[in-house]
Formats: sequence, structure tokens, C-alpha cells
Amino acid sequence: MFAITQDKPGGPNTLRWEKAPDPTPGPNEVIIDIAASAVNRADLLQREGKYPPPPGASDVIGLECSGTIASVGAALTLDRIGERVTALLSGGGYATRVAVPIGQVMSVPEGVDIVTAGALPEVACTVWSNLVHVAALREGEVLLIHGGGSGIGTMGIQIARVLGAKVAVTAGSQRKLDACAELGADICINYNDVDFVEAIKDATGGRGADVILDNMGAKYLMRNIDALNRNGRQVTIGMQGGVATELDLSQMMAKNVGLFGTSLRRRPDGEKATICREVEKHVWSWVGNGEVRPVVDRVMPMPEAGAAHTLLDSGDVIGKIVLETP
Amino acid sequence: MFAITQDKPGGPNTLRWEKAPDPTPGPNEVIIDIAASAVNRADLLQREGKYPPPPGASDVIGLECSGTIASVGAALTLDRIGERVTALLSGGGYATRVAVPIGQVMSVPEGVDIVTAGALPEVACTVWSNLVHVAALREGEVLLIHGGGSGIGTMGIQIARVLGAKVAVTAGSQRKLDACAELGADICINYNDVDFVEAIKDATGGRGADVILDNMGAKYLMRNIDALNRNGRQVTIGMQGGVATELDLSQMMAKNVGLFGTSLRRRPDGEKATICREVEKHVWSWVGNGEVRPVVDRVMPMPEAGAAHTLLDSGDVIGKIVLETP
Repeated sequence: MFAITQDKPGGPNTLRWEKAPDPTPGPNEVIIDIAASAVNRADLLQREGKYPPPPGASDVIGLECSGTIASVGAALTLDRIGERVTALLSGGGYATRVAVPIGQVMSVPEGVDIVTAGALPEVACTVWSNLVHVAALREGEVLLIHGGGSGIGTMGIQIARVLGAKVAVTAGSQRKLDACAELGADICINYNDVDFVEAIKDATGGRGADVILDNMGAKYLMRNIDALNRNGRQVTIGMQGGVATELDLSQMMAKNVGLFGTSLRRRPDGEKATICREVEKHVWSWVGNGEVRPVVDRVMPMPEAGAAHTLLDSGDVIGKIVLETP
Repeated sequence: MFAITQDKPGGPNTLRWEKAPDPTPGPNEVIIDIAASAVNRADLLQREGKYPPPPGASDVIGLECSGTIASVGAALTLDRIGERVTALLSGGGYATRVAVPIGQVMSVPEGVDIVTAGALPEVACTVWSNLVHVAALREGEVLLIHGGGSGIGTMGIQIARVLGAKVAVTAGSQRKLDACAELGADICINYNDVDFVEAIKDATGGRGADVILDNMGAKYLMRNIDALNRNGRQVTIGMQGGVATELDLSQMMAKNVGLFGTSLRRRPDGEKATICREVEKHVWSWVGNGEVRPVVDRVMPMPEAGAAHTLLDSGDVIGKIVLETP
């Protein structure tokens, strides 16, 4: 097969499209002939050596894919060969072939072409697991998503709206906020123009957000707590604003606040399989009936993964960058 | 009426038993002739001026009581006058009379005398709301309680056991640990002899606790996260070890950890009423059938509240100190 490889961690120009050894399936794994993968922010960290793959995972970058089942492991039946699928990966997506546990293989949602489908698994599973399982977002609650124009943001807005929540987003440009509004965001906050804590309080009669989906980590921690309503929950899924900072517990106790930190990639296979089954059942059906749509900024050839990383890093992307195999 | 009063915040000797104005009931409040109140650690902070009563609450110390309904507010029917009750208070317990919203009035559990009953509302409502609502403790999970010999600890052990959890406790003396074991604690850790993080991991095959009920705050924050199992939840209800400290979010993300800070006293009346109804239904029935018993270190005359505070502060108390009205 071919894959994106690196001699050593570094910038986008360390990524090379080269021949690589074919993966061999474990007993409960399938091999997928990849049609497309997509870029996640975690990929940029892994490229720089700051986010090593979990034990047992491929050292090829890439957390999701779409494609066709090419072969199956010893414990699986042959009748799934040839099936068009999507998959949540622990690594190995930037390649023409990947091995993945059968529990993380999902169908392709109705009405979505196989290349676009490669942009769906990571954002759908991340948003679903965090909003539904971790934060238990309820109908009528207010969800604040930082980075509303990101892959997570564009999927989060849509899923939260189907769940009956009111959605607020932050972003750094009017172009991104317009895209968020188009997807259903009710409250659009430009963090370059206003303080998001004041803005969300103003827009909610002083109450604040019931749930915050946060990608900034340390930088926003205490401001997020300030922005939360009583019994509010913050879920940190990214740390673009740093890892560690001072936490004032008394601010949490004053309004019964919950803080979560989660990582989809490090969940055990069993948890991932549960999430994938629920995403297939719920989110894929919403994609099928048009309530949720994939938001793809552009499709690039997979060998140009380095250029795709540079583009994502520029901050000028709305939704996902898809990497199509040649 | 008589009440414990203070001219200004300070040590135990600032507490004086004196005549005070009778409370007047709001439309949905009742007046209770108090039989007993009990000492909570928050009372010591309030005495020192470090934990002011919430807006609208009595400035008399005391978060719980037992007694008899003496009169009712304008919106309530008269037929409850004379009823023996317990109550969760926002303040005013160290007195012969108190006004309390009807929603926070509970029955006296079967088989419990009226004085002992004064020790139950605060610990029962705190443990129930945090283990059941906030942490969602499930059958078969491991709960770690810091300060197993405290009022919260002795009630927490028993409720968690009825809920089907395995219970670990920390305490600073063998006498306290023996009392915890007697109440049903499965894993007893003397924090003066061993590192509690290592001890809980050793006792759980390396997994750690699923839920931690924490009274130490800042001092234990990162060690508690270390002591948690995957998908674990820490609930901080006290800050004896300080308010603020550095939080490393990456340690939370590595195992999907949730942190909560809660304060029963600052919950709105509606939330308190919900908790009281559930405690009456569940915990009081367990007290009635002997599965849960009040743990009272001693009963002291209410005018000696200062001496009771000194005693609690000594750390030499197991369970609650009850304050009986003269």
C-alpha cells in the first residue's frame, strides 16, 4: 500500500507519500481499502510528535476513513467483503489501506458519496459521545461551542439542534459565524469583537450556557466556568490554549459546575464500538433525512496531506478537509 | 426565642446563647420549635466569617434541625401544626425556633428519636444529591470517601452500600477506620501510614475509584484525579485543603474524568425540595428498616455550641455532634 510517512516529527514538509507495508488484520479486524480520510487537529499534534499514537495503534496519522472492506480477520465472516463503510480509527487513516476493529466500522449514511463520508466518523462520534453521554445535553438547554466553524463545531451545531438545544458559537470571523448561523446556530459570538462570557450571559438573560464544548483547555477554563449556568457542564476535548492552569474550586461549588476532559482516541475498543453503534443509529439517520449534513471545506489529494495541514493551521477552514486517495 | 449569636466573627468563644427576635414565616414557610440541630464543618467557617449565609437566609448558624411545626405561613393549611419533622435549613438551626420553606421539611424516620433526628438532614441530603444526582454512582462501582469518620463519611458509607457500591475510605486513625469498617466500608486507608492513591489502586487491581467524595479541595485535586478509574467522577463538597490549585487537563482527558464542585446550601429552594422528597422516600426508609443508622458522636446542650465547635475542630469526632435545645 501507500501511506503518509515521516522520518521524524516536524512541520508539514516532513509528510511524504510513500510505499508502506500492508496492514494485517487481527482476528476481529477488517482491512479497508480507503477512499478518503480527513484532517483532524490532533493529526497536526501527532505530526509534531506531541500526540503519540496509543499502544497498539498504527503510527500512520489519520483518525477516520471511508472505503470498502477488502478482507476480514480470522474471527469474522467473509460476507462483509466488498461492503462500503466508514470507520473510526486509532490511527492509520492517511493510507490506501487500514486495519480496524469491526466494532468501529460503520455504514455510509444514505445520500452521502463515499469521499465525503470520510469526513464524518471523527466529528460525529466526538460530538455524540460528549454531548449525549458526557454532558447529557437536554432539550431546551443552551450549548456553547468554541470554534463553531471547525469540523467539530459544524457537526456540533447540527446535532445539538436536532437534540432540541439552543446553540451558541464563538468564532473569529464573520464568514465563519455566517456559516454557523446557516447551520442553525442561534447565538453567534465573534471573540475578536466581544468578551464571550458577557456575550453569552447577555444572550441568555444572565444565566449562561448549560453545556460548553471546549477546544481551548487552560486558556478558557475559568472564563468558561464564569460563562456556565447553574448545574452547567464544560467538556474539554482540545487544548489549543494550553494544558494546565489554576482552577478555583469555589467558583465551581458556587453553582454546582461539572468539568470533563475527554479523548475519543484513548477510549477502549468497547467504548468506541458502543459510540459507533449509536452514531450509526441516530446521526447517520439524521444525515440520511437531511437534518444533518457533512460540512466539507474542500477535498484534497491524500499525497498533499502536508498542504492540508498548513491550510487547517491557517485557521481559514470551515468544516473538514477531506483527503482522497489517488 | 433563644439563639446562638455573635457580635462579630471569630473563635468558638464568640458564640453566645441569647434572646433573639422570633422568626416570622413567609407564605410558604413553617415555623419549627427546634428539638435539636447538629454541627457541620461549614458552621465553623461561618463562625469565622468565611462562609456568609446566602441572601435571604438567617444569620444564625445551623443548617439542619428536628422539632415540631409550631405555625405555618399564609399559603399553607393549618393541619400540619404539631407534626414532628426534620428540616434542611439555609441557616438558623442554632436556635429554639426557625422559619423554613415547606419544601425542605421532611418527616422523622421511623425508629429515630427526635433529638437524634436532628443529625440527619444535612448529611443525608448531601450524600444523596452528590452520589445519586451528581456522580451517578452505580451498583458495583468503587466509591472513595475522604474523611470516612465524618458525618458525611459515616452516612456516605452506608448509603453507598445500599446502592450496591464497594466503599473505600480514608481517615487519620485506626479508631475511625474501625468505625468505618463496622458501617460497611470495604477498603480502609490510614492516610498517615500510606499514600491513598497507591492504596486505592492496590485494592482495585490498579483501576482506582469510580467516584470520589472529596472534602479536601485543592490539596487533593491532582492526587484524586490520579486515584480515579477511567470515566471516574470526583465530587468536591468541602475545601479543607484549600480553594485553588493547578489543574492539568491532560490528566483528565487521558481517562475521561469528570470533576464537580457542589454546595447544597447554595442550591435554589426548588432543587432542595426535590432532594428532600427523594431523601424522605429512599434514605428515611433505609433508616426505618435499619440499613442506615444515624452515627452520633455525642449530644451536647445547644448553648454549648462553642465547645462543640472546638471538639469538631479537634478531629476527634466520629459522626455528628448533636445540639439539643434546653
